[in-house]
Amino acid sequence: MYKVNDNYLKLPGSYLFSTIAKKVAAYSQEHPDRSIIRLGIGDVTQPLAPAIIDALHKAVDEMGHAETFHGYAPDLGYEFLRSAIVKGDYQSRGVELSVDEIFVSDGAKCDSGNIQEIFSLDNKIAVCDPVYPVYVDTNVMAGRTGKYNAEKEMFEGVIYMPCVEENGFAPELPEETPDLIYLCFPNNPTGSAITRDQLQTWVDYANRVGAVIIYDAAYEAYISEEEVPHTIYECEGAKTCAIELKSFSKNAGFTGTRLGYTVVPKELKQGDVSLNALWARRHGTKFNGAPYIVQRAGEAVYSEEGKEQLKKQVAYYMKNAKTIYEGLKSAGYSVSGGINAPYIWLKTPDGMTSWEFFDYLLEKANVVGTPGSGFGPHGEGYFRLTAFGSYENTVAAIDRIKALS
Amino acid sequence: MYKVNDNYLKLPGSYLFSTIAKKVAAYSQEHPDRSIIRLGIGDVTQPLAPAIIDALHKAVDEMGHAETFHGYAPDLGYEFLRSAIVKGDYQSRGVELSVDEIFVSDGAKCDSGNIQEIFSLDNKIAVCDPVYPVYVDTNVMAGRTGKYNAEKEMFEGVIYMPCVEENGFAPELPEETPDLIYLCFPNNPTGSAITRDQLQTWVDYANRVGAVIIYDAAYEAYISEEEVPHTIYECEGAKTCAIELKSFSKNAGFTGTRLGYTVVPKELKQGDVSLNALWARRHGTKFNGAPYIVQRAGEAVYSEEGKEQLKKQVAYYMKNAKTIYEGLKSAGYSVSGGINAPYIWLKTPDGMTSWEFFDYLLEKANVVGTPGSGFGPHGEGYFRLTAFGSYENTVAAIDRIKALS
Repeated sequence: MYKVNDNYLKLPGSYLFSTIAKKVAAYSQEHPDRSIIRLGIGDVTQPLAPAIIDALHKAVDEMGHAETFHGYAPDLGYEFLRSAIVKGDYQSRGVELSVDEIFVSDGAKCDSGNIQEIFSLDNKIAVCDPVYPVYVDTNVMAGRTGKYNAEKEMFEGVIYMPCVEENGFAPELPEETPDLIYLCFPNNPTGSAITRDQLQTWVDYANRVGAVIIYDAAYEAYISEEEVPHTIYECEGAKTCAIELKSFSKNAGFTGTRLGYTVVPKELKQGDVSLNALWARRHGTKFNGAPYIVQRAGEAVYSEEGKEQLKKQVAYYMKNAKTIYEGLKSAGYSVSGGINAPYIWLKTPDGMTSWEFFDYLLEKANVVGTPGSGFGPHGEGYFRLTAFGSYENTVAAIDRIKALS
Repeated sequence: MYKVNDNYLKLPGSYLFSTIAKKVAAYSQEHPDRSIIRLGIGDVTQPLAPAIIDALHKAVDEMGHAETFHGYAPDLGYEFLRSAIVKGDYQSRGVELSVDEIFVSDGAKCDSGNIQEIFSLDNKIAVCDPVYPVYVDTNVMAGRTGKYNAEKEMFEGVIYMPCVEENGFAPELPEETPDLIYLCFPNNPTGSAITRDQLQTWVDYANRVGAVIIYDAAYEAYISEEEVPHTIYECEGAKTCAIELKSFSKNAGFTGTRLGYTVVPKELKQGDVSLNALWARRHGTKFNGAPYIVQRAGEAVYSEEGKEQLKKQVAYYMKNAKTIYEGLKSAGYSVSGGINAPYIWLKTPDGMTSWEFFDYLLEKANVVGTPGSGFGPHGEGYFRLTAFGSYENTVAAIDRIKALS
């Protein structure tokens, strides 16, 4: 008689964003006349840039003729895209990587969920708290954690690193030594960033204790401050301890187009075993390449035209971030984030819980955000708003929130 | 100190098709003047059908305007595609499924590799021998098998079900009871099919012993005989024991476009635990939806125009299959497959091993096929040719092979 993977049964309730979607749908059905503004899930709203649309059309045309048709893509990604990435995202910042250290995928969510598979189930993970739920949930599903402690809202066997106002939303080195450390900067959900020096401390620590850092740099395009690193490989020694995850979702609007990549340096080894080779094996066996047309779209992100257009797109969202940040501040809220990231993190007023504030905002202002507690227990009392709406909606949402005060 | 997943280290050598690609590249470099014909990997060569190209262009245009832009897709697939699948692939054959039993993905290779994740590591798997390598390799990587026995070319703890000439390349019920049974019909690599009655025996067996059948129906579009089932749900009781995997790669040429789906019936439960819910959780946590434009392309597969065009495409490849089958037969080879599948399975002549025949064919005829032993020990002495080349290349390849005799 077959048995199910009962690690899945440890997961409490459903995925955060499904819960939010259901709550909003229910409210919407009861109040069909209300216009709801969604600043909750981190989905973009601006259309794909013209250079990307052109590349897509051209690639689609190629797929329509036998001479230019493309079948199975190389498992690890087309050379044209991998070299555009090496040049555009690394060489340009003085970081040397080779093309076969880049693994193209269908998105950073998949990569951040799958990367744990190449590590032993014995490894202990450390995560920021609050944190993007996928890191913990996929480790739970794999069996790398204990049970869920409903009172603490934590899984047993996981090292949680609080990121709160008191430490500037930057985690401190944990007391217990982890094997795998998930870091995401600029951060989702808090919108905070750390400096090159702060990140160097983590790299040094990982090398010292023999841990691997899984560095999620999905929001790198939003960095505005000089001392904030764009890639972990700006830090000395990172190639022997860090894997970096990158997304095309937020810098180029690919949330519905699906493209990402992971960097696994060849220097990252344990004895004779190369993590680069393990990930190549995983990719080659459980994945079949990103679509040709989407990889061509990704290449266009690095063209001169594409870069110019996307700079404007990022600026558009960062104008929204400023609108939210300053609007809430002037309304008396305590806010952070929004400088190097498209997320604004606010303290809920009057001691409300995160979900109480969610309901309050949905009902009184018809604005949807994300409850901080959905990202972990230290997110309780906080709330996330995203800058990915249209400018008009963002202004309207902030006006509504201000009117509540 | 972190540890790697040492189950990966049990895997011998590299993925079959990487080995072939390297051998062909080496030969090609030594003999740059030779024109090599590839009938090895199961990749298609015909361009995407006009109805699909039109749908892609239309969807790309939508992505270029804010009003029609699409961000994150629903994790489980757009309703428009899921209902087209329910109607086109199931209702049309008298099988009732609901839309939420269909999970859209980026391809059947991923699904066939990922599906094992929702089952316990204690489960014992049964596979056909020879078999598509992904089923076994992904179970090895997860830790569901013992070590590799190099002499037997088998993993310990796996039930191998021989599929050889003597049993018509159809597996017999195993002596030891498995928990998960991987079946693929029409079969890759042997090209064999089984009848509805034969499949019913498997469904009855699985229900009796409490096993789950993972039914890979990627080659369903090539079925030409009346008594061969198009879906396992044509068999009574299949909804309580079977998961079905489907691909758009072979019926619509999506090998480089990436789309597939998995059916997990709601009736498939163990006690209170619904496998449909587990797979939804896995999909929602480790996957982020197939691209909008690709899902629109998938929808076009079910349009009247699309169906008409793809019927011709399948007929084109099946003409190749006939050319290979009859050509080899007339040259004195012992051949099977090719009637309900785009694969022809031949016995290597003169007692050659599969890899000897691979080298022989590459060197003497400049034709690339796939060694049967690459699919498992009972594939030794066999060789796979695929019908996915162009007609001209297929004819030329068979002429070259005939000339060797």
